[in-house]
Amino acid sequence: MTLTGNMLIGQQAITGHREAIQAIDPATDKPLDPAYPGGTGEQVEQACALAWAAFDRYRETSLTARAEFLEAIASEIEALGEALIERAMRETGLPRPRILGERGRTCQQLRTFARTVRAGEWLDVRVDNAQPQRQPLPRPDLRQRQVALGPVAVFGASNFPLAFSVAGGDTASALAAGCPVIVKTHSAHPGTSELVGQAVCRAVKNSGLPEGVFSLLFGSGREVGIALVCDPRIKAVGFTGSRSGGITLCKAAQARPEPIPVYAEMSSINPVLLFPAALQARGDALAHGFVASLTQGAGQFCTNPGLVIARQGPALDAFIAAAADLIRHSSAQTMLTPGIFNAYEAGVGTLTENTHAQTVAAGQASTGPNQCQPHLFVTRAQHFLADNHLQAEIFGAASLVVQCADDNEIHQVIEHLEGQLTATLHLDDADQDSARALLPVLERKAGRLLVNGWPTGVEVCDAMVHGGPFPATSDPRTTSVGTAAILRFLRPVCYQDFPDTLLPTALRHGNPLQLRRLLDGQKEG
Amino acid sequence: MTLTGNMLIGQQAITGHREAIQAIDPATDKPLDPAYPGGTGEQVEQACALAWAAFDRYRETSLTARAEFLEAIASEIEALGEALIERAMRETGLPRPRILGERGRTCQQLRTFARTVRAGEWLDVRVDNAQPQRQPLPRPDLRQRQVALGPVAVFGASNFPLAFSVAGGDTASALAAGCPVIVKTHSAHPGTSELVGQAVCRAVKNSGLPEGVFSLLFGSGREVGIALVCDPRIKAVGFTGSRSGGITLCKAAQARPEPIPVYAEMSSINPVLLFPAALQARGDALAHGFVASLTQGAGQFCTNPGLVIARQGPALDAFIAAAADLIRHSSAQTMLTPGIFNAYEAGVGTLTENTHAQTVAAGQASTGPNQCQPHLFVTRAQHFLADNHLQAEIFGAASLVVQCADDNEIHQVIEHLEGQLTATLHLDDADQDSARALLPVLERKAGRLLVNGWPTGVEVCDAMVHGGPFPATSDPRTTSVGTAAILRFLRPVCYQDFPDTLLPTALRHGNPLQLRRLLDGQKEG
Repeated sequence: MTLTGNMLIGQQAITGHREAIQAIDPATDKPLDPAYPGGTGEQVEQACALAWAAFDRYRETSLTARAEFLEAIASEIEALGEALIERAMRETGLPRPRILGERGRTCQQLRTFARTVRAGEWLDVRVDNAQPQRQPLPRPDLRQRQVALGPVAVFGASNFPLAFSVAGGDTASALAAGCPVIVKTHSAHPGTSELVGQAVCRAVKNSGLPEGVFSLLFGSGREVGIALVCDPRIKAVGFTGSRSGGITLCKAAQARPEPIPVYAEMSSINPVLLFPAALQARGDALAHGFVASLTQGAGQFCTNPGLVIARQGPALDAFIAAAADLIRHSSAQTMLTPGIFNAYEAGVGTLTENTHAQTVAAGQASTGPNQCQPHLFVTRAQHFLADNHLQAEIFGAASLVVQCADDNEIHQVIEHLEGQLTATLHLDDADQDSARALLPVLERKAGRLLVNGWPTGVEVCDAMVHGGPFPATSDPRTTSVGTAAILRFLRPVCYQDFPDTLLPTALRHGNPLQLRRLLDGQKEG
Repeated sequence: MTLTGNMLIGQQAITGHREAIQAIDPATDKPLDPAYPGGTGEQVEQACALAWAAFDRYRETSLTARAEFLEAIASEIEALGEALIERAMRETGLPRPRILGERGRTCQQLRTFARTVRAGEWLDVRVDNAQPQRQPLPRPDLRQRQVALGPVAVFGASNFPLAFSVAGGDTASALAAGCPVIVKTHSAHPGTSELVGQAVCRAVKNSGLPEGVFSLLFGSGREVGIALVCDPRIKAVGFTGSRSGGITLCKAAQARPEPIPVYAEMSSINPVLLFPAALQARGDALAHGFVASLTQGAGQFCTNPGLVIARQGPALDAFIAAAADLIRHSSAQTMLTPGIFNAYEAGVGTLTENTHAQTVAAGQASTGPNQCQPHLFVTRAQHFLADNHLQAEIFGAASLVVQCADDNEIHQVIEHLEGQLTATLHLDDADQDSARALLPVLERKAGRLLVNGWPTGVEVCDAMVHGGPFPATSDPRTTSVGTAAILRFLRPVCYQDFPDTLLPTALRHGNPLQLRRLLDGQKEG
């Protein structure tokens, strides 16, 4: 479990030949050893060749074997023990409970996908039996299943060094679907990445799988990433990160001779609507909940509540005053990287200088490096509607309250929003009619709607949608969290009049895998 | 049921202001009245505004109401009677039985989608009940359903004037999903399009739906089409046509501020593999089946068998000789349009001039205009592997036999293929091991694999896949024929901790729609 600075290309630890990246402890701004030399184009090729060689065999592993492989990854990650926790804390500045929680979530996610793989619903087996006597033409025997798309390139996120990084949601769902994975690590946590990568490689080896099922590449900037996305053997991309980064990958994927899907989770300000009765009845409690959600993890969540929308008046004024007070007493927190801190400062600076946004509170300052001071701003609906900069995401603990004159203005503000991961409604019984009128708009704008909760905290389960219209994601038809994420890496294949001996097991007569099939239009029990 | 030359923008018949298109009877090369002036940018806007205004209401129609609407469209098309059949025959040159069959298929397709809508499986309802006692954090109540993407632009195909045109598969599946549809008609059959469009408009009116649920636009070239794809209110595109046309729409859709999915079905040569034992045992029957599939409808099908792959030797020579003889006796057939005829002639000319392809047979000539003479060519695997022009689609009744030295060369030829809609295997028991070895490659190459059949004839059912890797389609994750086509026009939305009174009916406690939900990880019976 020593850190080597090597990439993992299949089962080989290989040193890159390009400029090295090095993690920085954001609490001290000091670099952390070892250095991680970046991969070359040839090394990207090597990983893609291995992934391609592994694909046909890996995608046809039995449901049991694939599920056990995912569970083995979880066990290997747990076996990394304290070394992983400590390295992740140093590389991210995140506190121990957060890293422990994230490890738990990562392993639970892998085990949840193992259950999903075993259940086999994702195969979406459809059987239309032959009708040789049908007039005017007989119907052939037609059977459909889902097959894996091909090797997938996964880009780790900075803000979830475990749960959305090397063995995170994108990797788990792609492996579950039967796709080999090549991870381009996030440069903020290479040591954490190497440790988890070693764990995955051990699981590959101990599961007797072809080595190309998993590789891990380091690389500065976009060179390795673009080479990966443009390699003809890569058939899909998973990405969590900035809007500009996501759009760059989408454009590269579309410019290929064979375009491929990119699942990029990019940008969201997660509007929170405070309805009058709720605001009146419990403005103070709402302010507490809001500030807790806003400042958690220095606000470095894609679901951070960056926008509050409500009707102007004394109740909203009281909410703003209470929230401002809580923010003024909030401690500064270390952000993940100097780059993220600088972007946060720039975003806050731009909003501070905007004549139509008023700064109502800033959190406590701190002398250390990369310290996030929470910020709260207020603006009026007419300014928000007139200036698109007011809905630019500031990644960190900053939020903007939009004061609206009436329901009509609230409606306009929501209709004016770009696509979002979440939209939250705080309401009491008396607010239900107003809320109902807004639901059609909110459903068009966001992938997840919440009542009387806070958007941070994304459950890994069947019903979760962590997705939404552009620019929240590049593909609103999917989710990157929860078991439905497996559907991103599949395509249907139909088998017509195949003899049983040539059919994939899932499609054979007699249903040997005991799947719930759509049989002649009826779902089997 | 008179033809007016007008577009249908919602319930209004409106004359375009741009250059008119006019159908041409391909059997005589004479224009057919009336002329259809093309739509302007403003008229595209008008249709999009109506579709947008209709969207929120239409997508929440009950399953029953939406199913009845689809059935009403089918009845209205049938009620057009002989006028539709005659106009379609004149505009396409297709014979009466083919047009009658296609009308039947179109109406069956609409009724099949009605059944699919009623069954509600496509809502993919997922419920994870709250776990308030869970440690360390309670789990909220989470419910997911699929909602419609938004208004869809549909581009009619030339070769299916009914089944893949105004009320064809793309329109039926988009309407089934809850999306308003704006059709940009194919310029080859404007009269047929107007008649069917009038039928759909009557169904909209009689079903009491908002008029923007359906509009029909005419337009020369790409002007109206691109304006439609670029309108921010359009959220997805369905297209069946040429590779260049499909790629143009994909690029336009990706260049929008908010990129949208394009489902383009474009280009496929549908390889047919003849295995040794089958070829030996029944080469003559295979030749008959092959030529029948190749020449049906003048070969104007996306699933036309444009490529035959087999091991060289006496059995293949006999097959080629038998097929050549049948082709030499084949009558010429009128093609759909002068443009398609000219492209066919150009494709055949290019192949004739290719020094590595040998012309082995041409069908009978005819003096009329736009007459397709079937063609059969032969080449060797090494030439096919060296020259990508040999796998360019020739839309029409032309096919190329690739002679391979051994199994290894067959494998190379298949691996060298671009993405396909179909791949066909003709085999006997003794061929099964060879076939099995090729299946992993074929599964990567095509959306539908057939044994001992012919690829033309695409069944509308649950298990059908009419799709495949690029360039067969722009999105291999989907099918454009069969009930799974509805899934193209949906996105998931998750509702967290919603009171029952605000939940969509499909997600309410007590399961009022009696859907088969995924409930706490278990599929309900």
